[in-house]
Amino acid sequence: MSAPGLQALATDEARLLRVLDRTFEGWGVDGGAESMMMPVLLPVADLARLDFYDNFPHQAMLAVQLDLQKWDSRPTTGVQSFDPSVLEPALLGLPSAACFAVYLSMQGERLTDNIRVTVLGNCFRREERYEGLRRLLSFRMREIVALGDKEHVDAHLAEYGNRISAFLTALGLPFEIQAATDPFYDRGGQRALLQKLSPVKQEFIVEDLAIASMNIHRNFFGERCDIRSATTNSPVFTGCVAFGLERWLSVLYSHFGDWASAAAMVEKAALASFGKGI
Amino acid sequence: MSAPGLQALATDEARLLRVLDRTFEGWGVDGGAESMMMPVLLPVADLARLDFYDNFPHQAMLAVQLDLQKWDSRPTTGVQSFDPSVLEPALLGLPSAACFAVYLSMQGERLTDNIRVTVLGNCFRREERYEGLRRLLSFRMREIVALGDKEHVDAHLAEYGNRISAFLTALGLPFEIQAATDPFYDRGGQRALLQKLSPVKQEFIVEDLAIASMNIHRNFFGERCDIRSATTNSPVFTGCVAFGLERWLSVLYSHFGDWASAAAMVEKAALASFGKGI
Repeated sequence: MSAPGLQALATDEARLLRVLDRTFEGWGVDGGAESMMMPVLLPVADLARLDFYDNFPHQAMLAVQLDLQKWDSRPTTGVQSFDPSVLEPALLGLPSAACFAVYLSMQGERLTDNIRVTVLGNCFRREERYEGLRRLLSFRMREIVALGDKEHVDAHLAEYGNRISAFLTALGLPFEIQAATDPFYDRGGQRALLQKLSPVKQEFIVEDLAIASMNIHRNFFGERCDIRSATTNSPVFTGCVAFGLERWLSVLYSHFGDWASAAAMVEKAALASFGKGI
Repeated sequence: MSAPGLQALATDEARLLRVLDRTFEGWGVDGGAESMMMPVLLPVADLARLDFYDNFPHQAMLAVQLDLQKWDSRPTTGVQSFDPSVLEPALLGLPSAACFAVYLSMQGERLTDNIRVTVLGNCFRREERYEGLRRLLSFRMREIVALGDKEHVDAHLAEYGNRISAFLTALGLPFEIQAATDPFYDRGGQRALLQKLSPVKQEFIVEDLAIASMNIHRNFFGERCDIRSATTNSPVFTGCVAFGLERWLSVLYSHFGDWASAAAMVEKAALASFGKGI
């Protein structure tokens, strides 16, 4: 498997990824999150409704079927690719972030409470170039998502932001928190103004790599997916913390020098990160 | 998310799926398996080399990028699908089984020992119709794969077959083992003859649904992927046991009546399934 951006994880790498994922999932469950699982594919129509193809057309990957009439049963020996002319229209997309599926799976819901949801998503981003575990086409993202009123989302990001900082500190990983932009809110005068006043995306940078982020979506997904408060009937606010798991592998390996040491240190820091509430 | 064949798993379903997956992964690790992780996408050229598009063109799903030149920046509001004319050629495929990635990731290797590998794969099958958790487009498959000499593969399937039977019996799930055919070996005189003499695929059927299978590939993947014995230089034999995890959810829910009872019974049966060696 020599394709750029695709990488198999051997036992030691896979073990560390699982330890990290269980830790972050556990943080979510600690905070009352429902731990769900999502399908890998999402309907194009749904992603389009979230402005995905306006904002990220360069990253977009579609899932499409062979048109059996057009393909017929030509011999496939030596085939390197399929021409678009033998493909059916693309009805499904491969998401670039894990939380889209959460909002889409909750379409039309009326929430009686502030809630949290955590998911491990397979994510896909077409890039100009790929780079080891730092930049992949097919990668894994753990997210802990908050849905509810604005105060709930603000508290969620503050609490989990602190937890990430404490965890990185316990691991001895030097990091910075940097404001970033998110194209979901670049357009429209009021949103653009708001974004200038308060950043909607903050990233945890280790070794020049964003390994985690905190994201404020305001009520964008609540509106688009018709997820509302049962009491006020207003679209919910949402926000998430996201962990790029292969990127964590990359910086941990680089910092600790081997997979076993990295896993031992993460296990230790993870243990200390529980039992304090959030 | 109303698309046929795509289903989100809520907390209770996801919990049961994880218990099942940890159990089957644990059986693999018990038997010395390396527990790896694979990218979701695989190169079309590699899958074609495994005769995938000859054998399963009707199931095939491709992953493809938007052609930004052709798509330009048309507004995507209300978009339901993308026409093939705005897609790039498809270089990547979505696999229909978890073990393809294992053989492809080991291309060119020379094995000094008989080995086992276990993976949880996201799998994709285009179907005429989808049906709840019984028949999905995007689903999860745990596999435990054996690579080595023929005796190793035969012993692997016998041992894990017994383990599956014992587990189903402990759960009180009535099951049958049925021989099935596998298109990888339908063609060519000698292979077709061999298949008639001894079945290459056996399925565990519960409630008319194949929830697990045992598969003999002979040295097909060893040949195609140039995975050889370091001592004899012959292509290795391979075989796998595979678990369709959402299908297990479906029959367990139906049998036990609710998710919590099903999870409790599976935890109990899983505990009893360890510590006996294989």
